[in-house]
Parts: sequence; C-alpha cells; structure tokens
Amino acid sequence: MKAKDVVYLNGEFFPRAEARISVEDRAFVFGDGVYEVLRAINGRLFATRFHNDRLRRSLDGIRISLEESDSPERFTEIGSQLLRENGLMEGEATVYMQVSRGVAPRLHNFPSPPVPPSVYISVSRFKPYAELAQTGANAISHPDLRWGRCDLKTLNLLPNVLAAQTAKERGAFEAMLIRDGVVTEGAKTNFFGVVDGSLRTHPCDNHILPGITRSVLRDLADGLDIDLEESPIKVSEIPRLSELFLTGTTTDVMPIVKLDDRPIGNGKPGELTRRLQKVLADSLSSG
Amino acid sequence: MKAKDVVYLNGEFFPRAEARISVEDRAFVFGDGVYEVLRAINGRLFATRFHNDRLRRSLDGIRISLEESDSPERFTEIGSQLLRENGLMEGEATVYMQVSRGVAPRLHNFPSPPVPPSVYISVSRFKPYAELAQTGANAISHPDLRWGRCDLKTLNLLPNVLAAQTAKERGAFEAMLIRDGVVTEGAKTNFFGVVDGSLRTHPCDNHILPGITRSVLRDLADGLDIDLEESPIKVSEIPRLSELFLTGTTTDVMPIVKLDDRPIGNGKPGELTRRLQKVLADSLSSG
Repeated sequence: MKAKDVVYLNGEFFPRAEARISVEDRAFVFGDGVYEVLRAINGRLFATRFHNDRLRRSLDGIRISLEESDSPERFTEIGSQLLRENGLMEGEATVYMQVSRGVAPRLHNFPSPPVPPSVYISVSRFKPYAELAQTGANAISHPDLRWGRCDLKTLNLLPNVLAAQTAKERGAFEAMLIRDGVVTEGAKTNFFGVVDGSLRTHPCDNHILPGITRSVLRDLADGLDIDLEESPIKVSEIPRLSELFLTGTTTDVMPIVKLDDRPIGNGKPGELTRRLQKVLADSLSSG
Repeated sequence: MKAKDVVYLNGEFFPRAEARISVEDRAFVFGDGVYEVLRAINGRLFATRFHNDRLRRSLDGIRISLEESDSPERFTEIGSQLLRENGLMEGEATVYMQVSRGVAPRLHNFPSPPVPPSVYISVSRFKPYAELAQTGANAISHPDLRWGRCDLKTLNLLPNVLAAQTAKERGAFEAMLIRDGVVTEGAKTNFFGVVDGSLRTHPCDNHILPGITRSVLRDLADGLDIDLEESPIKVSEIPRLSELFLTGTTTDVMPIVKLDDRPIGNGKPGELTRRLQKVLADSLSSG
C-alpha cells in the first residue's frame, strides 16, 4: 500500500500533488517569506522550541505578523499531525514549515491593508547520511554571494541553490562559503574547524544562520569541557585545519575530510569530530 | 462590464484568481527564478528586444534552460495576446513574465533529471506617475543588503521589498541603496545624478541591474551630446548633487527633489532632468 502524502496549506489538508497556491502569492514572485525544517525521529520532533523561536525571529525580521489563531507552536502541532497521517511515526522524517506574506497584486510594498500570511507545512521521509558520517565527506570553497541578513531563514535561497549545485557537480557534499576572506558557513549547514588545536566556528552575526544544531553542539561541547572559540576561520588558516565538520538539522555532525581536493588533517574524521558526533547522536536518541 | 482578467501559466490561460501553482514550485520555496516587466502603450510593447535579451541573460545566469518550444520572444507574444484578451489595447499597461526552475521535491540542488521550467505571464493596467513626474519625488537612503549578483533579475527580492516598504513608510517614492559608501541604485530603479555639472550613474557591474530605461536614456543623452560618466556617486558627494533622478520601465525619468528630507539642488526638478524626461517621453510615444 502506498503511503499517504498529505500536506497542509492555509487551513486545509491536500494530497501533495493537489496543493496549489495563487500565482500572486508573494513567496512565488518575491521569495517574500521564511521557513524552518525540523527533524522527527519516530514521530518525535527535535528541538521544537528552538525552531519555533527562530521562526518567530525570522518572521519579525521581515515583518510578517501571523494571524491570531496561528503560531509556530500551532505549526509544529500540524507537523506532528502530518507525521501521523502520512505514516511517518517510525524512523526518520523532516517537517517543513513555510510562512509567506500572503496573496496580493504584485507590488513591492507590503499589501495594504495586510492580507493573511500563507502557511505551508509538509513532511518527508528522511534518510540520514550514515555512511558518509563514518567516512567523512568532501567540500568545496565557494564565494558567499548571499545578502546582508543571512541570520534570517528566508526563502531568498538562490545563492544557496547555486552554491549547492556547484558542490554537487564537483562531487562534493557541501559548499563552504567565503566572504571577505573568512569562512562563514555552508550553503545548507554551519561549519566548525580545529585550527592549532582550538575548536572554532563563525560567531552569530548577520552573515550566518544561527543554526539549531550549531547551538546544541556548543552546549554539548561545553558539557564535555571542550573550549569553543566563536571566531571566524580565515581562508589563510585553512591549510592549518586539522579537523573540519559541518552541522545542520539533517546533517548532524558531518566530518569534512577533503576541501577543494586537499585532505584536511590526515584525511580522516578527527578525534574531536568523532566525540562531538557521538554526543550529538546520543542527545538525538535520548531527545 | 468588468474587464476580463486572464493570465498565462504553463501553457494554459486562467482567470487570475484561479491560476495556481504547485507548492513544490521552486519559485515558491527558493525564489528560484527570474522575471521581466515590460511596458505596453496602446497595446504596443516597448523595448521588447532589450527585455528579451535580458531575460535570456538572467536565465543563463542562474542556469535555467527553457523548453525547445519556449523562448522570450514566445513569451512577449503571449503577453501581447493577454493585452488583447484583457482589453488593454488602449492606454498604459505592463506585462509581467516569470520563469522558475519548475516543480520538484524540495532539494537545493537542481532537479535531476531536469523538469520543465514554470512560466507565468500576466498583464496589468498601469497608471504613470504623471503628477510626481512634474513636481519631483522624495527618496531616502537605505543600506544595500542585496546579494552579489544584482545584475540578474531574479525572484530573490526580499531586500528590495523591505527597502521599498521602508521608503513608503517614510513618505518617499524610492529607497536609494548604499553599498560600500556609494549609491548603487534604487530598490526598483536606477539612479542618475549631476555632481559638479557632470551627469553620472553607477557603471554596469554585479551590483546593479542593467536597466533598460537606463540604457535607452544613455543613448538618448549621447544623441543630445550630453556627457554621461558611468562612475558611482559616493555618499560623500551627495551634498554636491544639483540634480538627481531615477529611471525604470514604469518610472520613466522621475526627478528626485528631496533625499532624506534635504533638498537636492534648489528643491525642484533640474534642467538636465527635464530635458531627458522630455526626450524619453518622445521616444516612448514614437516607439
């Protein structure tokens, strides 16, 4: 029996193939919206509060006000309902939640009077990168062409799309974005590296997304008495990297063993990477 | 009798309110597409070849390949058909043409194998800003937060939307975007200014859109033996501006008489601005 594939759109549930939005939705013509992707393991959503807070922050950042009856908490409930209805209560899945500024004639200015935001929520089966997580993955470096508010999780994802595609075509798992001589983050992930024995990652500012897994990992590192320095890794420091890994909701801790075809450290996942990978996995399974 | 309101979407014609696109269209979730807006006067499209060439350049820039049967020329034909069917053969109208990378499960990488791009074309009644064009308009300065490929006319328009909305709330017609100490362009227009008697505008590079009206105006200025220097106007030069105007497909030549509440020149549209406004109007009416 084929599993159901139902999504939520503006108060109603539809088979995915029948879920359709107006061509005047501002997400369609302006990318005028924000989103979150949550991880579900055996039907249980992970780090819900962090994702909801970040969604609220993104909405505030681009000035979308939800309807009274709506909230990020309500959206995660709908996500849970979709997991049940789509038979995703066992194993791994993701929940995608998107809010756009709604449907209105195409004018850059916000619709006046305001229109109800459009809310789209869907779930998908997800297969963790188990094998790559053991062997480690490749990355390329790529110019960071994104806008000045990368701290907001918006639908303006074209630079991420183009960087991710370039990475794929060069046989790499991720593109490591370089702005003004420093590594900011990946097209879809945050980056951590070990330089001269110190674990470092880019500080939270307008050039990176405040990743949930990044934040969870920072707390886990703290619990293990591992010092983490939030300072950017410079391009000139890349040859001195002994370990490198990326983090993300669907990526967990992914060792990077090769960057632009040059090995990182001894070309195998490093010892600190392994430790952090393990504590994150434990945290996910205990939840 | 209410005029018809028909739009084109992926090979079919629909009443605008019934034109709907899949929630998995990449324009909806990634802003993964490009667009053009053309001006139609009495049913005749203006500068079609320039718009078609720019659309082709934008498509190439983000690596979308049209179907064999599709082309920008075909889209402008459909635009003309929509003008006829919607009763817009008299007076002013605009044609909007959008191409996105198509419908596929949400993954950053391009769909593999490729899917047909989604094509959306619509027309709208348009009322030129006749009064403001006489009195001149206000502008504000605003940080240019856009990405590194502003030369492509993509759907990643959130920074433009936010800047345009801020301008509106401050009673201004346009936001003049500032990056690295220079004026790049407006949220929806290009900017020209007269500094120490010289007409100047930002050169075409990755920080501005190569505006069609900008280009038409450059040729018209050349025909009038007016020197145009393509060098950016620095923020530090703003107090020395004696004239300032913006250009765009729906903006024509719009004098800016006040910037951030300070008058430009004597606070009235300048003499060069008036001359260029007139030759552009003549060019539009002669076609």
